[in-house]
Amino acid sequence: MAAATRPFADLAERVLAGDRRAIGRAISVCENADPAAEPLIAELWPHAGRAMTVGVTGPPGVGKSTLAGALVGHLRSLGKSVGVIAIDPSSPFTRGALLGDRIRMSDHFLDPEVFIRSMGTRGHLGGVAEATFLAMLVLDAAGKDVLLVETVGVGQSEVEVRSLVDVVSLVLQPGSGDSIQAIKAGLMEIPDVICLNKRDHPAAASARRELHHALALGEEETRPVVVESAAVEGEGIVELWDALEDRRERLGPDGLRQRRRENLAQELVTIAAARSSARLRRLIGDELGGRLLDRLDAGEIDPVRAVAELQDAARDDT
Amino acid sequence: MAAATRPFADLAERVLAGDRRAIGRAISVCENADPAAEPLIAELWPHAGRAMTVGVTGPPGVGKSTLAGALVGHLRSLGKSVGVIAIDPSSPFTRGALLGDRIRMSDHFLDPEVFIRSMGTRGHLGGVAEATFLAMLVLDAAGKDVLLVETVGVGQSEVEVRSLVDVVSLVLQPGSGDSIQAIKAGLMEIPDVICLNKRDHPAAASARRELHHALALGEEETRPVVVESAAVEGEGIVELWDALEDRRERLGPDGLRQRRRENLAQELVTIAAARSSARLRRLIGDELGGRLLDRLDAGEIDPVRAVAELQDAARDDT
Repeated sequence: MAAATRPFADLAERVLAGDRRAIGRAISVCENADPAAEPLIAELWPHAGRAMTVGVTGPPGVGKSTLAGALVGHLRSLGKSVGVIAIDPSSPFTRGALLGDRIRMSDHFLDPEVFIRSMGTRGHLGGVAEATFLAMLVLDAAGKDVLLVETVGVGQSEVEVRSLVDVVSLVLQPGSGDSIQAIKAGLMEIPDVICLNKRDHPAAASARRELHHALALGEEETRPVVVESAAVEGEGIVELWDALEDRRERLGPDGLRQRRRENLAQELVTIAAARSSARLRRLIGDELGGRLLDRLDAGEIDPVRAVAELQDAARDDT
Repeated sequence: MAAATRPFADLAERVLAGDRRAIGRAISVCENADPAAEPLIAELWPHAGRAMTVGVTGPPGVGKSTLAGALVGHLRSLGKSVGVIAIDPSSPFTRGALLGDRIRMSDHFLDPEVFIRSMGTRGHLGGVAEATFLAMLVLDAAGKDVLLVETVGVGQSEVEVRSLVDVVSLVLQPGSGDSIQAIKAGLMEIPDVICLNKRDHPAAASARRELHHALALGEEETRPVVVESAAVEGEGIVELWDALEDRRERLGPDGLRQRRRENLAQELVTIAAARSSARLRRLIGDELGGRLLDRLDAGEIDPVRAVAELQDAARDDT
């Protein structure tokens, strides 16, 4: 028994000391819904909250990963340690290198002050949302100065980045229908900073016009800042970072505390709801589900009653 | 007391008789989570299951509503009664007319054999998913021969059409990045029929090529049928309907029964999960949520513990 728990015995301590292997192990423990996750998180939680957390989101193909890689480089030049969590399954972060780009992710992988992790979507009871939230908590407690979270999509993805971070950047590119859709869908109210990447694209001028036109329709107070970049060339990265820092500073200590409290409330609901969904899916696949469907077929119960019975079963299930 | 329940006293009977006003009232009762919904659904359920149910889904702007309107016209010419549920909030069905189109929705609104309803997203505990499921049950029990459900988006929308219907048609249009995204995202495995609308579009040839190329990569057995239409001109509608009917017939009685059973299982989970989410959101906004967040702030509990307490509270909540 003692032997079985041994590998995790001083895990929290080692994470708090910034030990790289311990961080990786701790994230895996959280991802796999290991029973050791609960005491680990309980130990780490009081040490979290110091990192600045930044979301990098946007449609596929706009250059989010390249931009995140360039941000890592800039942050390192400022002497800041960085944690990166990539949720986009097609992210080059998961492969370890951005071939053809000036910024080599492989360099960052060798840097002890940079921890990069791509999140799987399997295994955990609370799904990728819970695993991501806990991984950020681990990296935060481990003392990383800045955490970047890369997610694909906005407002519809499995993991909503808004409630995970202090500030959100939405990356768009010229000449893309997705960007126009994003504008139309009112997603302009979600990000703090919009980064128009690939600024040398032939359609950049019209994208810029459309963007500013769309933003002019929104409230001035909550309007995102627009910056432009050419991530592959490493251009506009300083401006992007400065805009993100500026937005966070403008929140003030009370504003930041309030936003984090709202984010945490949202995350608790998201995680609890994901656990509940997983439990319901399991129950419907079990004997109980088969019985309910048989009784529905026979006309013995109706669907509203069946939902109520399913909920009751989930309530009794532990 | 008797007076209060009086308006609903014979509602189920009147719905079963196909009474138009009763159908509208019954759907409202379901939408508003009225306590009368439970006995109503219990009475209607044994009479449901006769309608052929069809999903019409796809990205915004591809012409789903026009196509659905044209399908209604075709079905009426075949002597079939039709129920239409539009979940897309921007659907012209909600306005009652498709201006500029040859097919006037207003004609259908006056036809006693056509019942059109646009679903709101407010009010119901189980949200729009539950309201939509129950509205279909009402229309089915009321004797409509065919039910069309129009939803925006695929695979990401609030209401997943797949588990609501017997057969799904995905509407795409040439020259749209969305369609290419849909193909890339593997959404080809969801629909039974893909309808390439606006077939006279200049980019139709290349869209056709891309579509067939993408489909050739998938399994032949589950491959969707492709039809082409020009809904505004009323072209391709018969072909679309025949393809939908053919796909449903190819399932066979056992196949259809199996699909409906799987759909029902999925709907029960979706509805129970939506109710659970709504309950969790309410709890976090209440006193309990405030206390949990305060204790987290003070470091008295950690987030995993807070999620567990939130789940416990939801369990005790009725």
